[in-house]
Amino acid sequence: MDVFDAIKTRRSIRRFKEDPVSEEDLRKILDAARWAPSAGNRQSWEFVIVRDLERKRALARAALGQMFIVEAPVVVVVGANIQRSSSRYGERGATLYCIQDTAAAIMNLMLAAHALGYGTCWVGAFYDEEVAKIVGFPSHVRPVAIIPLGRPAEKPAPTPRLPLEKVVHIEKYGSEWTGG
Amino acid sequence: MDVFDAIKTRRSIRRFKEDPVSEEDLRKILDAARWAPSAGNRQSWEFVIVRDLERKRALARAALGQMFIVEAPVVVVVGANIQRSSSRYGERGATLYCIQDTAAAIMNLMLAAHALGYGTCWVGAFYDEEVAKIVGFPSHVRPVAIIPLGRPAEKPAPTPRLPLEKVVHIEKYGSEWTGG
Repeated sequence: MDVFDAIKTRRSIRRFKEDPVSEEDLRKILDAARWAPSAGNRQSWEFVIVRDLERKRALARAALGQMFIVEAPVVVVVGANIQRSSSRYGERGATLYCIQDTAAAIMNLMLAAHALGYGTCWVGAFYDEEVAKIVGFPSHVRPVAIIPLGRPAEKPAPTPRLPLEKVVHIEKYGSEWTGG
Repeated sequence: MDVFDAIKTRRSIRRFKEDPVSEEDLRKILDAARWAPSAGNRQSWEFVIVRDLERKRALARAALGQMFIVEAPVVVVVGANIQRSSSRYGERGATLYCIQDTAAAIMNLMLAAHALGYGTCWVGAFYDEEVAKIVGFPSHVRPVAIIPLGRPAEKPAPTPRLPLEKVVHIEKYGSEWTGG
């Protein structure tokens, strides 16, 4: 799939078919994730693959009851390995870089999944401590996203976007961009 | 360009040719950025396009003297609009979601640029207050990245990646993944 098509036709998917995710596809998707750039190439990402029904249910409860998480055949819990980034970059590594590293990896993961015909949703609302406990993260790994993954059972319309002119500025914030 | 090829062949570029970035290409690249997902679709990103030589020099100095920034015909300063995210999500919006939103947008921006034959580099090390002053960000917009953009004048080898087995876990952190 063309990269622009992948970027523009990806949607947040909250309904999934029961079809499993093959190990081969899962490997391709996770491999794409780790080709993201990271600060100092520290690769501060951790991925926990959850298929167990009870564990998925626990994750959905920890995510304020977003029960569609349970529907997905695979749930990827993404952790930021704070230690891996902060050991070189201190506070900035712990509070900025490892969040950015993992977010960039998640974006790649979602594009790769979409290109292979899977749907994903970036779930960010959850109780950190509960999620960490469910997947066994030690204190230096912070859960940053829960990503259900599976064949989409819905075709959502694109969500609206702010006009480029509102978020693009020339030389200084607040200046107008006419887009050339 | 195929999305997997884009993901795997993108490199961090620190040497640029003088060739300009066309407005048409710049629009495509920024358009790709804004198709990233964001928490609650708040789209907490702001992009300042810098071409002015003195401003690029100031950015390079604020980025601890990373002078290759000046070489790029275009420098995109990415800001996280904290207010846009925190007005709905409070502290979690301010310290997590808007960092993730902007990082996801940057990943798309880099893939789109690469697909169009441009190089980029994710510069994260800089003095926040200086960068904010240079591009006129108000206090509710935090600079999160400086992205030089231009035709690559180098072909770096891929940086190494941790083996998937080290960062992928099954059901619980620390468990082994054999990759199917």
